Amino acid sequence: MTVYRLAVAYDGTGFRGYARQEGLRTIQGELEAALETVLGYQVDTAVAGRTDAGVHALGQVVSFSADGLDPYRLRRSLNGIVGPEIGVTEISEAPEGFHARFSAHWRRYRYQIDCSPVANPLTRHTVWHVGKQLDVDDMRMATAPLIGEHDFGSFCRRIDESSNTRRVDEAAWVIGEGSLLEFWIRANAFCQQMVRSIVGFAYDVGRGFADAASAQDVLEARDRARVATVAPPHGLTLWEVGY
Amino acid sequence: MTVYRLAVAYDGTGFRGYARQEGLRTIQGELEAALETVLGYQVDTAVAGRTDAGVHALGQVVSFSADGLDPYRLRRSLNGIVGPEIGVTEISEAPEGFHARFSAHWRRYRYQIDCSPVANPLTRHTVWHVGKQLDVDDMRMATAPLIGEHDFGSFCRRIDESSNTRRVDEAAWVIGEGSLLEFWIRANAFCQQMVRSIVGFAYDVGRGFADAASAQDVLEARDRARVATVAPPHGLTLWEVGY
Repeated sequence: MTVYRLAVAYDGTGFRGYARQEGLRTIQGELEAALETVLGYQVDTAVAGRTDAGVHALGQVVSFSADGLDPYRLRRSLNGIVGPEIGVTEISEAPEGFHARFSAHWRRYRYQIDCSPVANPLTRHTVWHVGKQLDVDDMRMATAPLIGEHDFGSFCRRIDESSNTRRVDEAAWVIGEGSLLEFWIRANAFCQQMVRSIVGFAYDVGRGFADAASAQDVLEARDRARVATVAPPHGLTLWEVGY
Repeated sequence: MTVYRLAVAYDGTGFRGYARQEGLRTIQGELEAALETVLGYQVDTAVAGRTDAGVHALGQVVSFSADGLDPYRLRRSLNGIVGPEIGVTEISEAPEGFHARFSAHWRRYRYQIDCSPVANPLTRHTVWHVGKQLDVDDMRMATAPLIGEHDFGSFCRRIDESSNTRRVDEAAWVIGEGSLLEFWIRANAFCQQMVRSIVGFAYDVGRGFADAASAQDVLEARDRARVATVAPPHGLTLWEVGY
């Protein structure tokens, strides 16, 4: 058996998230159905990041095992079925033992916020329009303590019994064109809703509803109730996965 | 009467173009219906660039005359009706005699092309996915002769009996991130399908179907039949209008 590695992009708007759910339209469901159509048999796929409903991806990575496939022809066949909301941008043979989830060293996400008074119709599915100016310096103070290895229980939707410990290597606010704010975050792994909870907290700080100096406290509390706002999914894109 | 100037952005995907057409969904139709709802009476609007079906705008300009309106409240009311595919980003009182179309000195458009093998699902409504590498240097040669004042009959959908003469001040190909190509063009005015015809011709040159050196000839022919390809509307955005 050979392991195949797929790079996948998708517009998450019309999906109920990545992970397959019986009777619901999901990325995994569409991908595996297309694979079955092309290959003539079912395969189980692994994925680097199980994105929530409405979240997008440019550099998602999926893997599965099969025998003797032609990556180029497979990519063309799959794209004929899953497009235009999903695009399989690349397929290659991976080293033995490769697993999209377990082999990944880090994931990088981008979150976009628009502070201008009126939403840009052309980016309304990929940018969270907050419609007010935010204090970016305070937001940077709010996210700086997250760098490093911590228990992120305060920023996880479900407290994991085993561990909510993650290592964040990058958490940067970039001022884009117009009134666009980009948040870039890279970590070894993320718990559910972690990026959106961090962005939600930073947003509360940026608009003066929470104190930037409380960030360390919130992190140490390991208490989900300390984060009042979870940013909506459509501003989030899984950008890249590192192996 | 006071002249009001509106800056308008829209996602042209779901519209049959800017100009009002009986029984069809158009930007002008939606805008004027919303104005009538808010003001309680009909107004006639002027527009800087009558974009075709599927073409987008970020910096479209619209004007109309009325008495004693509050620009801020009007903007809020209109956006409550026309969003999210249309956004009125600004309303201000214009100098006496201002007319969105006749007062405009220039229009600037952006056209986006994606050369990568697989379309990006997140930009599929705003980028023309051609799926092959193009020779950008040849495309630059193809559009360079357009700079200056010329009869653009070869690039106009309908030959205007009066004049197809326009003055092009900028026609630049910019290589963006990934395999993205941007074409920026600024002119005093454009005839119908002019940008898309120019992009279509450049595309034919870039893929080797037409000779870059023939550009001067094509321009001088003033013959629509000399341009074989018209680029699709969804890659085009009216970016800015100068007064």
